[in-house]
Amino acid sequence: MDNFTFYSPTYFVFGKQTENKAGAYVKKFGGNRVLIHYGRGSVVKSGLLDRVKASLEKEGLSYSELGGVCPNPKSGLVYTGIDICRSQNIDFILAVGGGSVIDSAKLIAAGVLYDGDFLDFCKEKPVERALPVGTVLTIPAAGSEGSPNAVITDETTLVKKGARGDAIRPAFSILNPELCFTLPPFQQAAGISDIIAHVLERYFTPTENVEATDRLCEAVLLTVIKEAPAIMKNPRDYEAQANLMWAGMLAHNNVCGVGRIQDWASHNMGHELSSLYNTVHGASLSVMFPAWMKYVMDVDVSRFVRLAVNVWSCSPNGQNPKQTALEGIVRYESFLKSLGLPTSLKELGVKTEDIPKLVEHLKISRPEGCGGFKRLSFEDAEAIYLLADRETL
Amino acid sequence: MDNFTFYSPTYFVFGKQTENKAGAYVKKFGGNRVLIHYGRGSVVKSGLLDRVKASLEKEGLSYSELGGVCPNPKSGLVYTGIDICRSQNIDFILAVGGGSVIDSAKLIAAGVLYDGDFLDFCKEKPVERALPVGTVLTIPAAGSEGSPNAVITDETTLVKKGARGDAIRPAFSILNPELCFTLPPFQQAAGISDIIAHVLERYFTPTENVEATDRLCEAVLLTVIKEAPAIMKNPRDYEAQANLMWAGMLAHNNVCGVGRIQDWASHNMGHELSSLYNTVHGASLSVMFPAWMKYVMDVDVSRFVRLAVNVWSCSPNGQNPKQTALEGIVRYESFLKSLGLPTSLKELGVKTEDIPKLVEHLKISRPEGCGGFKRLSFEDAEAIYLLADRETL
Repeated sequence: MDNFTFYSPTYFVFGKQTENKAGAYVKKFGGNRVLIHYGRGSVVKSGLLDRVKASLEKEGLSYSELGGVCPNPKSGLVYTGIDICRSQNIDFILAVGGGSVIDSAKLIAAGVLYDGDFLDFCKEKPVERALPVGTVLTIPAAGSEGSPNAVITDETTLVKKGARGDAIRPAFSILNPELCFTLPPFQQAAGISDIIAHVLERYFTPTENVEATDRLCEAVLLTVIKEAPAIMKNPRDYEAQANLMWAGMLAHNNVCGVGRIQDWASHNMGHELSSLYNTVHGASLSVMFPAWMKYVMDVDVSRFVRLAVNVWSCSPNGQNPKQTALEGIVRYESFLKSLGLPTSLKELGVKTEDIPKLVEHLKISRPEGCGGFKRLSFEDAEAIYLLADRETL
Repeated sequence: MDNFTFYSPTYFVFGKQTENKAGAYVKKFGGNRVLIHYGRGSVVKSGLLDRVKASLEKEGLSYSELGGVCPNPKSGLVYTGIDICRSQNIDFILAVGGGSVIDSAKLIAAGVLYDGDFLDFCKEKPVERALPVGTVLTIPAAGSEGSPNAVITDETTLVKKGARGDAIRPAFSILNPELCFTLPPFQQAAGISDIIAHVLERYFTPTENVEATDRLCEAVLLTVIKEAPAIMKNPRDYEAQANLMWAGMLAHNNVCGVGRIQDWASHNMGHELSSLYNTVHGASLSVMFPAWMKYVMDVDVSRFVRLAVNVWSCSPNGQNPKQTALEGIVRYESFLKSLGLPTSLKELGVKTEDIPKLVEHLKISRPEGCGGFKRLSFEDAEAIYLLADRETL
């Protein structure tokens, strides 16, 4: 186990009707003049935004609004948000939505207190100061409600890049599983794919003797695998939604990843699909992760066997561990398909001849290469895109 | 799953030689004049206290010292600590030791800022203000390094009581597994028993549909069960100590217990053994928990079967689930014995005729009764003490 620090100071407020406490928590964490940040209208239509506003009004808090965040959020709206905050002396950002909204809110919060371009934070400069951010989460997926991360697409280069820093961990996050009852099935499924990927990016490590975090990773995966089919069958299953929503936070506040080198190559390769084809993030991962697994399996077959046995209930084949490892990947792919997710580039509408462009773009986004379990060359990346192009196992 | 809040803001610093950063972290969290609180000398003999002092001096921080905390810590030393802090304008408490030292430090921190008797916090009044506390942990056991709890024995009544409040969660906790290399085997084993008990008190719940936390509980238990024998064989096994130390924190910062009713009857009954016979806390639990399990098993056999199968690797007996459940308890007892721990009152030197006294004392400590999985009457408690008096299975 490597030395590490772990810090997850977010105050989580979980359960039914908790969005009505948003105002009280903004006040608890020092907010007075709030910017409510949200997406493209579903929170308006559902009445959620009105309930949140009412809770702010109840506490005597003033607020402005900035909607319009799209999936794979863009830099443009962040600049708009920073301008609003500065001109209106906003002192608290309240994100009402999913990962895209929260990420956009985090970068507004960081940008307001920074004299330069907020995109500097996407160049390894950690965010050290930011306005406090609160969240009302509407989909379990990105884990941004408990993470120090934010991902944004620079509109001038179409490069999808990440910023991080303890200063952008949310002060509080409100998680009401009831808010997920009306999610479109594909969006819900993509969120599930994202949660699984957040765990797997940590599970695949060259660091040895990390039993505690291995077991936590397996615990979160087992929870997701149990609850996901119940949710796809009946999205109003509160208990299944509740377990999934909490698992989504655990998958990405790094409690599953401390003390170990992590991978993240599948995310990096998936980001290129989102940048160039606007692929839904979770769908980019359902395509790239199984392909990555097949390509890197030989680096440490025993780790793939462990996943297959402990998570996918495969019987270990002592004579042929590789067969067990592959069986685990097949079950993962079958699971993703059962949720209605794509597992090949074809299903995303990405053609074989587009692969060189993806690789070229990856060279710009990740000139240093990617992957901690196996460091990938750009030839490796191309081979993995080609694997993702084929029919699945 | 029940509605809940979860808040674990402690900054954890984990790994080799991290105690040398104590001064830097005291400074980061605003300390200037520090009270170093510790036990009965092992941290002096080992040189740890000198390293911690050197790290404070390096940062230009002044400090006073208060040693002498004993296992099952007493109220007297807390009053002494409060007086020192007030007279010397101490603004930060640094606990160097195990759970007893940390608990004592937390109550000093709370008492300094409170006009009344700090024992008021042991009467359901949560601690809302306290000096910041940092810890340098020397044994994985109590989980106090990440918890909002503190337990103290009121010397006037010999009642062992708990205080709690987010204000006494440590600001930072330094966990260096190397510090455990020289622990006496019995103390190490008692710590392991305590960690397991912290998980089981949460695992046994009447709340349904808590898959995420069930899986986390199982993950922590599986980690402890894997690492404990390695440590008992070779206490200088860094990797095993590291996984156990982190598991000890996870077992008690409540990440395993949110959204569910918890039990805690075994702790309450064990506390009486510590109050009256000064039984080591972990040893009181290795005696009381298996006895409690046998007594309450029929309340929900399926939960005991799940534990037996998922944690103790028992084969499920579909025809006779009770047999599987019992097999799990037997394996737990065998595991405790293999660590050199007692599993009966006899081994603690407590006689059958002492049981009425234990029950009478429990009536004073817990007039409302105890237990969330099964609410115990005092007749139930007597029956459990009698079970603990018998030879084990």
